[in-house]
Amino acid sequence: MNAEKTTYHLHLESQHGRPEHLAPTAEAWAAAAKRYPQLAAQVRVTCGTDGDIRDKALETADFTIDSTPPRERLRERAPRLKWIQTTGAGLDPILPLDWLPPGMILTNNRGAHGHKAEDSITLALLALHMRLPALMEQQRSGAWREILTAPIAGGTAVVIGFGDLGQAAGRAARKLGLHVIAVTRTGNAAPPADEAYAAEAIDTVLPRADFLVIAAPLLPGTHQLINRARLDRLRPSAALVNIGRAAIVDYTALREKLERGELAGALLDVFEEEPLPPQSPWWTTPNVIVLPHVSCDTPGYIDRLFDFWFENFGRFLRGEPLVNAVDPKVGY
Amino acid sequence: MNAEKTTYHLHLESQHGRPEHLAPTAEAWAAAAKRYPQLAAQVRVTCGTDGDIRDKALETADFTIDSTPPRERLRERAPRLKWIQTTGAGLDPILPLDWLPPGMILTNNRGAHGHKAEDSITLALLALHMRLPALMEQQRSGAWREILTAPIAGGTAVVIGFGDLGQAAGRAARKLGLHVIAVTRTGNAAPPADEAYAAEAIDTVLPRADFLVIAAPLLPGTHQLINRARLDRLRPSAALVNIGRAAIVDYTALREKLERGELAGALLDVFEEEPLPPQSPWWTTPNVIVLPHVSCDTPGYIDRLFDFWFENFGRFLRGEPLVNAVDPKVGY
Repeated sequence: MNAEKTTYHLHLESQHGRPEHLAPTAEAWAAAAKRYPQLAAQVRVTCGTDGDIRDKALETADFTIDSTPPRERLRERAPRLKWIQTTGAGLDPILPLDWLPPGMILTNNRGAHGHKAEDSITLALLALHMRLPALMEQQRSGAWREILTAPIAGGTAVVIGFGDLGQAAGRAARKLGLHVIAVTRTGNAAPPADEAYAAEAIDTVLPRADFLVIAAPLLPGTHQLINRARLDRLRPSAALVNIGRAAIVDYTALREKLERGELAGALLDVFEEEPLPPQSPWWTTPNVIVLPHVSCDTPGYIDRLFDFWFENFGRFLRGEPLVNAVDPKVGY
Repeated sequence: MNAEKTTYHLHLESQHGRPEHLAPTAEAWAAAAKRYPQLAAQVRVTCGTDGDIRDKALETADFTIDSTPPRERLRERAPRLKWIQTTGAGLDPILPLDWLPPGMILTNNRGAHGHKAEDSITLALLALHMRLPALMEQQRSGAWREILTAPIAGGTAVVIGFGDLGQAAGRAARKLGLHVIAVTRTGNAAPPADEAYAAEAIDTVLPRADFLVIAAPLLPGTHQLINRARLDRLRPSAALVNIGRAAIVDYTALREKLERGELAGALLDVFEEEPLPPQSPWWTTPNVIVLPHVSCDTPGYIDRLFDFWFENFGRFLRGEPLVNAVDPKVGY
């Protein structure tokens, strides 16, 4: 009576040195398979680390979860590969996507980060506005000095990028009574933006910012978008929040401005080199909060990724379009 | 044609050692008088510090702005005194109010602190939830270690006291998606409380708290309300925020619990001795944010106080009830 069901091969690939909570391990798979037993019964899994068994696995794999898949002659090496899932949202390590064979689907994990990002940006805006880094520096030195600040409402947040993270930033800002200006590739933006501009108009909006929030993906069009000249367009009372990618901002210029007191502060969750090395000057730059790339991630991150993958696998079996399929021409 | 208008005598009293932004100085009066020229024309002002001219001034004063007015034989010493304005909201230094002569009005400055308090508590809840003290301790030591936390929404905040500050705490908590339980003298609470209990029921709600926010005035009924046994009813994952008064909480027990890791953290804006002395153990207690009593105060605080006083003076001249008149029996 039961129709014979096809079994698919899924290869899970982890990298040493990446944060453990992002690794698609055999243990995380086993836990997820219990949540989706019927779908899991149709999947045969292999698990590798740092490419140890990847070449062999790709010979038969239908799917892979791998944030940095091999990009040379991929179709030749993985003749059956139909779908690649990455564990993060940003695809910058594998851009441009000219290596992606026609018909092969690439999905990222965008949409998993919004709620935590909203909390993180709410915290960032208030902490920078209320000068928490200076207050905690005083605490360290046992000094009691009032630093009085006005309520935050009525200020303006300029948000670069208005995808999942940018919209989370927008919600955070609106919740605090800020005016939200979105800067996007197209010049259009979803709610809760009060105004939206194309990236070409960025110079006109930067002087209006009390807060500049970087929430864009790293693409050729955003690389060093916030360069020294643009940082100079910010008011000295403005603060910067980066939960996107470090290379969108000229960090050398940013640090110099912070050292000279030409900006009120910064919260940085992303750096060119992660983990940030112990000798980095960022650890001690004044009025800066350094976060270890946690602003958008939650406990159970990889469990949610597997849930997302299983839901997409169900769509695959039903012949439906996959959620979070990346447009190779745009890069997200 | 012009009726002769009565001129009233207002005595302004400052104390050395209190924060400067709370001092009703001659300069602040002069600035306020420009904003209310017609009303100011009916006022003759004297300014004193630490009681230097107070006895003499009170012989003729109709009004005074003084947070610690003389309490012995006041009617005898100030035969014309009709109205005392304090510069803060909490009246704990002059309680009980049995010294207040019949018919003399006492007004406090409640209602001036809500917007800033809402910001401060939003920051406190997120900072403690996301373990910002530990993250910033890592930053100090140049250590990159992910501390992953879930979104804050869905947790529960228990708010002690639900006047202006408590309601601000309630708005902050609701804005972050928390469930709000108010504990009040009467057992009733205004929005945005989801539930309200009388102080007698406090033991039953403390185990439900992810956050315990102290926003009550210091009164006989709140002194040491959060004693050691009640702190022990909190979950180890709970965090405490105090923007009310230090003596509401057993700070020795609180510090011991924080040192032992039996609570997740605390943000304390109020202390028994302010300024907090340099040798205080609070400066270095783990997972604690020490603020120098700024969580509810803004720049221009004294300007707003004078605005409030002039509006009330207008009511006085029109024979209307004064806003913020304190009920001597309740103490706020």
